[in-house]
Amino acid sequence: MERFFEAKSVAVVGVSSSPTNLGRAIVFNLMEFQYQGLIYLVGPKGGVFAGHKIYRSVADLPEPVDLAAVLVPARAVPEVVRQCGEKGIKRIIVESAGFRELGDDRLELEQEIREALSRYGMRMIGPNCIGIINRYNGLAVPFMPMRAEAPSGRVAIFSQSGGVGATMINHCAAEGIGFSRFASIGNKLDVHENDLVAYYAKDPQTHVIFGYLEGVAKGRELMEVAARSTKPIVVHKSNRGGAGAVIARSHSASLSTDDAVTDAAFRQCGILRVVDQNEGLTAIKGFLLPQMRGRRLAIISRSGGHAVMAADAADEFGFELPPFPEDVVRLVEAHARAGVIQFHNPMDLGDVFDLELYEKLAQETLARADIDGLLFIHNYQGIFDAEGSRQLVTRLGHLMHTTGKPVAVCVFTMQKELEYNRKNAGYPLFTDPRDAVRALAWNRDFSGRPENVFATERPQGIDLERARRLLDTAPEGPLDPDLLASALTCYGISTVPWAIAKSAEEAMEAAARLGYPLVMKTASRHVVHKTDVGAVRLNVSSNVALRDAYASLVAFGPRVLVQKMAEPGMEWIVGGRQDDNFGPVLVVGLGGIYVEVLKETALGIGPLNSEQARALVHQCRGATLLQGVRGQKPLDEDALVDVLVRVSWFLYDFPQVRELDMNPVRVHGVGCAALDWRATVSAS
Amino acid sequence: MERFFEAKSVAVVGVSSSPTNLGRAIVFNLMEFQYQGLIYLVGPKGGVFAGHKIYRSVADLPEPVDLAAVLVPARAVPEVVRQCGEKGIKRIIVESAGFRELGDDRLELEQEIREALSRYGMRMIGPNCIGIINRYNGLAVPFMPMRAEAPSGRVAIFSQSGGVGATMINHCAAEGIGFSRFASIGNKLDVHENDLVAYYAKDPQTHVIFGYLEGVAKGRELMEVAARSTKPIVVHKSNRGGAGAVIARSHSASLSTDDAVTDAAFRQCGILRVVDQNEGLTAIKGFLLPQMRGRRLAIISRSGGHAVMAADAADEFGFELPPFPEDVVRLVEAHARAGVIQFHNPMDLGDVFDLELYEKLAQETLARADIDGLLFIHNYQGIFDAEGSRQLVTRLGHLMHTTGKPVAVCVFTMQKELEYNRKNAGYPLFTDPRDAVRALAWNRDFSGRPENVFATERPQGIDLERARRLLDTAPEGPLDPDLLASALTCYGISTVPWAIAKSAEEAMEAAARLGYPLVMKTASRHVVHKTDVGAVRLNVSSNVALRDAYASLVAFGPRVLVQKMAEPGMEWIVGGRQDDNFGPVLVVGLGGIYVEVLKETALGIGPLNSEQARALVHQCRGATLLQGVRGQKPLDEDALVDVLVRVSWFLYDFPQVRELDMNPVRVHGVGCAALDWRATVSAS
Repeated sequence: MERFFEAKSVAVVGVSSSPTNLGRAIVFNLMEFQYQGLIYLVGPKGGVFAGHKIYRSVADLPEPVDLAAVLVPARAVPEVVRQCGEKGIKRIIVESAGFRELGDDRLELEQEIREALSRYGMRMIGPNCIGIINRYNGLAVPFMPMRAEAPSGRVAIFSQSGGVGATMINHCAAEGIGFSRFASIGNKLDVHENDLVAYYAKDPQTHVIFGYLEGVAKGRELMEVAARSTKPIVVHKSNRGGAGAVIARSHSASLSTDDAVTDAAFRQCGILRVVDQNEGLTAIKGFLLPQMRGRRLAIISRSGGHAVMAADAADEFGFELPPFPEDVVRLVEAHARAGVIQFHNPMDLGDVFDLELYEKLAQETLARADIDGLLFIHNYQGIFDAEGSRQLVTRLGHLMHTTGKPVAVCVFTMQKELEYNRKNAGYPLFTDPRDAVRALAWNRDFSGRPENVFATERPQGIDLERARRLLDTAPEGPLDPDLLASALTCYGISTVPWAIAKSAEEAMEAAARLGYPLVMKTASRHVVHKTDVGAVRLNVSSNVALRDAYASLVAFGPRVLVQKMAEPGMEWIVGGRQDDNFGPVLVVGLGGIYVEVLKETALGIGPLNSEQARALVHQCRGATLLQGVRGQKPLDEDALVDVLVRVSWFLYDFPQVRELDMNPVRVHGVGCAALDWRATVSAS
Repeated sequence: MERFFEAKSVAVVGVSSSPTNLGRAIVFNLMEFQYQGLIYLVGPKGGVFAGHKIYRSVADLPEPVDLAAVLVPARAVPEVVRQCGEKGIKRIIVESAGFRELGDDRLELEQEIREALSRYGMRMIGPNCIGIINRYNGLAVPFMPMRAEAPSGRVAIFSQSGGVGATMINHCAAEGIGFSRFASIGNKLDVHENDLVAYYAKDPQTHVIFGYLEGVAKGRELMEVAARSTKPIVVHKSNRGGAGAVIARSHSASLSTDDAVTDAAFRQCGILRVVDQNEGLTAIKGFLLPQMRGRRLAIISRSGGHAVMAADAADEFGFELPPFPEDVVRLVEAHARAGVIQFHNPMDLGDVFDLELYEKLAQETLARADIDGLLFIHNYQGIFDAEGSRQLVTRLGHLMHTTGKPVAVCVFTMQKELEYNRKNAGYPLFTDPRDAVRALAWNRDFSGRPENVFATERPQGIDLERARRLLDTAPEGPLDPDLLASALTCYGISTVPWAIAKSAEEAMEAAARLGYPLVMKTASRHVVHKTDVGAVRLNVSSNVALRDAYASLVAFGPRVLVQKMAEPGMEWIVGGRQDDNFGPVLVVGLGGIYVEVLKETALGIGPLNSEQARALVHQCRGATLLQGVRGQKPLDEDALVDVLVRVSWFLYDFPQVRELDMNPVRVHGVGCAALDWRATVSAS
């Protein structure tokens, strides 16, 4: 990626001297952003633009430049790529649209490009994008004219949509937030988000990574790349399915994956997912402050109403509000005009208007060992009092710098004062207390990354080989329940005791071994909704009933599963399926009739370690029932967690098991066991 | 209220010529906002300010002005109020702080003021506020200097916090949104939010009402006042409990009520509650557009990425996206530069940049009978193309005006362009597609008001008098279960069949009548957690067991409740309590062990009609289980709804019943019945 962003020379391909030519805007941007390298222009009609000769073809260029930015009709792109290859140009950005986003008949064009890239060992960004910007060396190749309004800064942006990416730059500019790198990645034929995340994660000028995505190119790899980054990663992933999916397909050729899977995957690897541009900006602002290392927040506010809002938000986002110490209270009291002030945290400054006192207050507060961060809410009208307030804002920034603790500053004033402060504060400002507190919460909750995004070690007692031998014999489609139970047993996953009976006599023998009461059901793998078709008999309690049950079940085939009736317990579901993009997706949740209605389930990407599995169990609100409510004894959460871990390895080890569903898994005081289980395998 | 806002003369009390005097700012504001009435100044030191003589006391004023704006130390306020009364001034705004917000020892001061108001027939706003503004006649009495930046417009604001109110004006100003009235109501000693909502609802210059509250003065009345307003009411109610409650108490003397009750009450009377200033502003913007009369939305976007976001949001907020007709598609196709465009709704304009075409497109779209509103997303950089885009923005406003359909316009451009458009568009602009769609959804869902915010007619078969006679005999504290059951029966609320036995023999007789199996429990009203202390026997199935049960239950007292074991069914809870502010609060939700963990409950303010009761039942996610899932037969939702309605009347008719809890109420295929019930009465 460095070779894209640090290119010392760039050829803009597709320039003409015609006033409607879009390639000219690329040249405009290189100048506007004061590109520090050499610029060459290429266009079939030749001529001159902006003092540069327009070469008629890439072949004519006097030297092999570091980077080509290409904006020619889609059908001409493969040839341009080949020409670049021949010329020895190793990095190319294709901004032209008209590829797979228009339909599958354009896939051939992309294939041609892919072949050329491979033949010449080139890397490409695009097509259907607006290219990249390096704010520090002025390399700026978007084909729409931009102003270098946003300063250089610490936010690196990647975006699947050029329009959204450019908007994000404008939003940042409006807030006085600078950026380091920008990349619009369009159809992601070659370079995709993972390349950029990896590059930004290493780039010393970048502190926060923001991305906009409509599809995820390689989900599992993204999780690994993200987990290795020590910098916060904020991603606005749209295209949640439904109407969004239709338009996303034609805009950036992105297919939609299950949105809940994306949510789970991002959470697991520490990517903060935001739902709109506002949240994205709030998150960026939060991460630009020093890291908050605890939950203890001090709030100082010029306005009592905003103090109330801030206190509400502190509750909502899990902050503690330690009281202000006596000496600070006395300090402020001495300045109170009419004595009309009371001291809590939040501190409502009431009628105390003394900007130097404010600064001193902030300083003493940040010096306290029991305070991890400060929210300072400043209201001023800016008519007679602008200068002091402007200074206060700047000084709060210095305090943040020297103490290394975050200060979220809300400023409420007239628009022009706000703009002045945004430009000059040197750090991001907020205009809503709840936004500010939420930003601090995100900042606080970012703790670097999980050491391993996936489990690395199988739990003990797994006989992978034996399970493999069993599954290798299985034909495509639903698995025989006895075969599946045996395979699960190889992974240490408990099912209730069972036996296969191929005759009433064998069923009697099983009954003698297992003991009444029993459950009997067909063992035919072809009967999927067993209860619905009468292929299950519950509470079989005598030999007579057993014979009767066998006689009726034999209609579905001679093989019948005889199971011991399970002890009472709490019902959960554990299962999963293979996702083409992310790998094994595990699901755990409340079982029984509530699962369908209340959907208290959590998803994770396997293999999971115990810690991850436990976190998923706890995500379900019903999890507290495991601790035993209303005087009931606690249930074996550890056993449930262990099953989830083992199931995650099972699905990881056997990708041919497309879906596995254990519903219910009954959790007892000690142990848990599946009462019913089913799985489907694909041809291996 | 008109007499406050339409005052033709105002006396500012508390002015001196000292440069630190805050009263001077009131005079400044009257000038800045170009007040059209007469201004008089009062201050004990006399002198001159801004060309006006400062009278030494209210008594010295040459005439009884329409309004006095008072900013003197708290302890001097009662005397000033009396002087105003003597002078014949009927409207007074007390901006001074230092009353109950400092503690209960200041309540006496407030009492003195209250007496004076009553003696002279005066109305007062405040204390502890910044006063009011009428943007149309320039009456502006806040004691902090303000700029008349926000134009006159259609939004009326009331705020319990002066700081928050002023901020809201600044926020509106920044968006180019004008206001009509402003009132900061502080401690609400006399005038409170209900007066303002009623006044704004009738004010012809007001179209949207926005309020910020930390406490609700008279909840039930607010619901009635709000229900009578045909204008949208948006309220940001902070002070949700916890840390917010502590600071709110000292800021505006507001006690916190149960936040969930406020939520329920606002929903029931059609007040839109927002959680922060951003949402408040978004809602105001939405309501300033013409009313959207259906769910059918067209989306046209310059940027594909924003189109995807908009489509996601359309799904999220329940819009339909009808396809664009063929002729519109062809019209746009003819302008596509490289043919790189596809047509869906959202329409991604891709490389079509033709501002006149955009306008034509919007026009044709709004003319369609199958479209109820339009979201237009415009991206431009504003470097070479500003003029056309500015015109487009204005013209979209005209189209909205002529067609009467809402057009939510998102503009993504550079900051200065955005500001230009905000000032000149003549309607509010958005800068996030999801915000815009949410605003349209709020607009769409505002359908005037419910005809009646509370039920007006008791259901049939209620014997109020008999119930009253029963309850009148009850001592304070928990009710005897048989007495309560009898009273509930008077209201047509079913309990399972039961009898009281005062001896084992009577229990036997009851058993003969009711039939085994039975449930037996103590009928002592003093045993609250009956199950925990062993005062309940389930599944009593024989005379022997019955005698045994009676013998053990008699330990709690001789009176034992003998109940028929209920048929299986789905367990719900129905109950309620009296809220001092809102009246009877009803609760309905999933019963059993899940109620505590999953908290699937809904609240309403009684009395409720069937429609309202049904809506509450449906708010609980478990409600779909009533329809019969997994092939089970549907349950009697109507019966549950009926019980809720009757319970709401019961609590409405008998405010001495402080709490009532029926848990569980078992819902069957036909009918439902309470299995356990308890209530507490206060001294009547």
